[in-house]
Amino acid sequence: MATYDVVDLIKTKRDGGTLTDGEIDWVVDAYTTGVVAEEQMAAFAMAILLRGLDRTELSRWTAAMIASGDRLDFSGLSRPTADKHSTGGVGDKITLPLAPLVAACGVAVPQLSGRGLGHTGGTLDKLEAIPGWRASLSNAEMLAQLEDVGAVVCAAGSGLAPADKKLYALRDVTGTVESIALIASSIMSKKIAEGTGALVLDVKVGAGAFMKDEASARELAETMVALGTDAGVTTVALLTRMDTPLGRSAGNAVEVAESVEVLQGGGPAEVVELTLALAREMLAAAGRDDVDPADALADGRAYDSWRAMISAQGGDPDAPLPVAQATQDVLAPASGTLTRLDAMAVGLAAWRLGAGRARPGDAVQAAAGVTWHAGVGDEVREGDPLLTLHTDTPERFERAFAALEGAFDVGAGPVEPRPMVIDRIA
Amino acid sequence: MATYDVVDLIKTKRDGGTLTDGEIDWVVDAYTTGVVAEEQMAAFAMAILLRGLDRTELSRWTAAMIASGDRLDFSGLSRPTADKHSTGGVGDKITLPLAPLVAACGVAVPQLSGRGLGHTGGTLDKLEAIPGWRASLSNAEMLAQLEDVGAVVCAAGSGLAPADKKLYALRDVTGTVESIALIASSIMSKKIAEGTGALVLDVKVGAGAFMKDEASARELAETMVALGTDAGVTTVALLTRMDTPLGRSAGNAVEVAESVEVLQGGGPAEVVELTLALAREMLAAAGRDDVDPADALADGRAYDSWRAMISAQGGDPDAPLPVAQATQDVLAPASGTLTRLDAMAVGLAAWRLGAGRARPGDAVQAAAGVTWHAGVGDEVREGDPLLTLHTDTPERFERAFAALEGAFDVGAGPVEPRPMVIDRIA
Repeated sequence: MATYDVVDLIKTKRDGGTLTDGEIDWVVDAYTTGVVAEEQMAAFAMAILLRGLDRTELSRWTAAMIASGDRLDFSGLSRPTADKHSTGGVGDKITLPLAPLVAACGVAVPQLSGRGLGHTGGTLDKLEAIPGWRASLSNAEMLAQLEDVGAVVCAAGSGLAPADKKLYALRDVTGTVESIALIASSIMSKKIAEGTGALVLDVKVGAGAFMKDEASARELAETMVALGTDAGVTTVALLTRMDTPLGRSAGNAVEVAESVEVLQGGGPAEVVELTLALAREMLAAAGRDDVDPADALADGRAYDSWRAMISAQGGDPDAPLPVAQATQDVLAPASGTLTRLDAMAVGLAAWRLGAGRARPGDAVQAAAGVTWHAGVGDEVREGDPLLTLHTDTPERFERAFAALEGAFDVGAGPVEPRPMVIDRIA
Repeated sequence: MATYDVVDLIKTKRDGGTLTDGEIDWVVDAYTTGVVAEEQMAAFAMAILLRGLDRTELSRWTAAMIASGDRLDFSGLSRPTADKHSTGGVGDKITLPLAPLVAACGVAVPQLSGRGLGHTGGTLDKLEAIPGWRASLSNAEMLAQLEDVGAVVCAAGSGLAPADKKLYALRDVTGTVESIALIASSIMSKKIAEGTGALVLDVKVGAGAFMKDEASARELAETMVALGTDAGVTTVALLTRMDTPLGRSAGNAVEVAESVEVLQGGGPAEVVELTLALAREMLAAAGRDDVDPADALADGRAYDSWRAMISAQGGDPDAPLPVAQATQDVLAPASGTLTRLDAMAVGLAAWRLGAGRARPGDAVQAAAGVTWHAGVGDEVREGDPLLTLHTDTPERFERAFAALEGAFDVGAGPVEPRPMVIDRIA
């Protein structure tokens, strides 16, 4: 590989120029191995944030991040693979019913997932509420489970895209997180390295999401779809609503419980709607649009697949889920229609109750969270419980109540129902 | 002092916002003490480079850098003080005749100076060609010499603007040098901390200068004049030509020799012209526009002042200057008028001959450099020596000759004479 002067490359991007393939390969590799120092990459990241990367640069940047580590390969499996990534929302437990549902339809789901930070929960934190379930699998265990069960949700090993891991930690402390290019390449480098054949992106839009407005969500979605396509992974994105928290629960065990309801044929309609929409995209992207996932949900195959997936990772699908030591209710202040429920406020309350963490490595409470007993558009009666707060540490109630102040409105209905999916980008 | 989150401040500047006084004071102090990490300041510097600082922000930033260390105070001296700063050019020995000349006119010159890096020489490197002369003085020695002799050129101690020292080293490796705001605040924080009452800036414009075009040189000059004024230092800038190297020599001992010629009433006309122009500005800024420096040059007072200044710092003004072990000539390729002599090429040749350094801390050769025997507009005769290269290490000749290839033209004259001073900014 040729050698470059990183200061020259920083200046090129700073002044609005375009980086060559060789320059991008070199700088990502040199950063991973420590030849390029943290302060140099920090200046580079700020220049990228303010000047952008064009599609060719960004595809190469993503490829270089993938090349910094291992790339899994599931092409030897007896069935096609598809995965889903969500940009994160409050109450977004969709991976839990979705992965076994898609597996039940004949497409394997190899999902390497992360833990939560801040107001959005992490899929691994949720599944760890199930007694016995473990997040860490070797590559061989993952492969065997994909062949046997068809679905794996486990922790990403440190071998995938180490350049991204290092860069993400740096961006976090240098004010360089909010770059569409850097966000997209971070997500896609991990997902492509994970070895999935097809990928469906759930890009959340709204007050409870990272992308508050549709324009930036659309830009992120288009950028990620382009990156996936350039890397040979069939990639589709759905823009979905995240102004109201998803379903009726935000937390860990409470979201597992809701997911099991969905897998058993019940659950909140919007969770079913979004799960099926994403399942159809994953199946189509994997070449199985002949299968209707609604059937697998209705006839119990998806629930069977869930039980197998949980059992394969040491979990007991029949064990009672943890219950919080204390609960308190927020009562409906009037009779009428619930016209607004703010996703960010609910996410913040769940976090403050102990469901999430402030710092990487903090422990979370399995039973903490928020459940609510009506969705937007539903009728409520004055004095009835509207939300229930769950925690093992009751001193947390006060700050959770504070987060929920002004978080909902009860007024005159009806509320126009809105579909979960805003748009599809392929 | 209030505490801030540096990531918030980086984002404010990144997004084009304005920093408050308290935020600027905090971030400069926190960086100096290591609370703000190098990678955070690197991202911040890139955001400043691309978004700028307004005048209020920049004055505060400069003040905070001054406040990070000591500020000298010469207000107790029996005469006013004035200093000069040059942004650096090839053959720019002006400080050498200028400081004793101004001192001879009744205004004290407290110049803290640096060493050269790259193609422009450093004043201390030049003076160190004088046997016995030492650059390091204590503050007490500096004060005594200013009172007795009236002129001091010595090394800046580490106590002045330590924030700038740290930031400059960071900018050098992170592609964040080329910011008018950061250049101006770096220069001005050191000059203001130095304690001078008045300051004249020699901002060079042209191929041999840091600022290649007049517009950016003017912006830098205006920015620095504003910073000086805001800090209560009477500040004036001259924009001066630097397309052709100044005088007839570039190096260390060779520039001392030329400076002594000027102080003895001779020397190249353009060096005399620029020295007098800057001296008049310094005298006027210090309230002594009743004195004509041309008289002090003509009657020997400036040369006496030079001898006193050199002696006070251990130098022997009568000792022979070092002579290079080897010299080689570049001959005029034709008879005619010297119509062009490229400053950058001459500076590079002098550097390659050993007069400058590639890395801080490298040693320089006292006798190395380039002298030339005609200025632009002068007649030359085919086969006569046009330039002479001086070095103690003859293996360096080849690369110096290479630097000078295509560096001059001999053709039809006459060449329109141009004044040294392009404009004055006050």
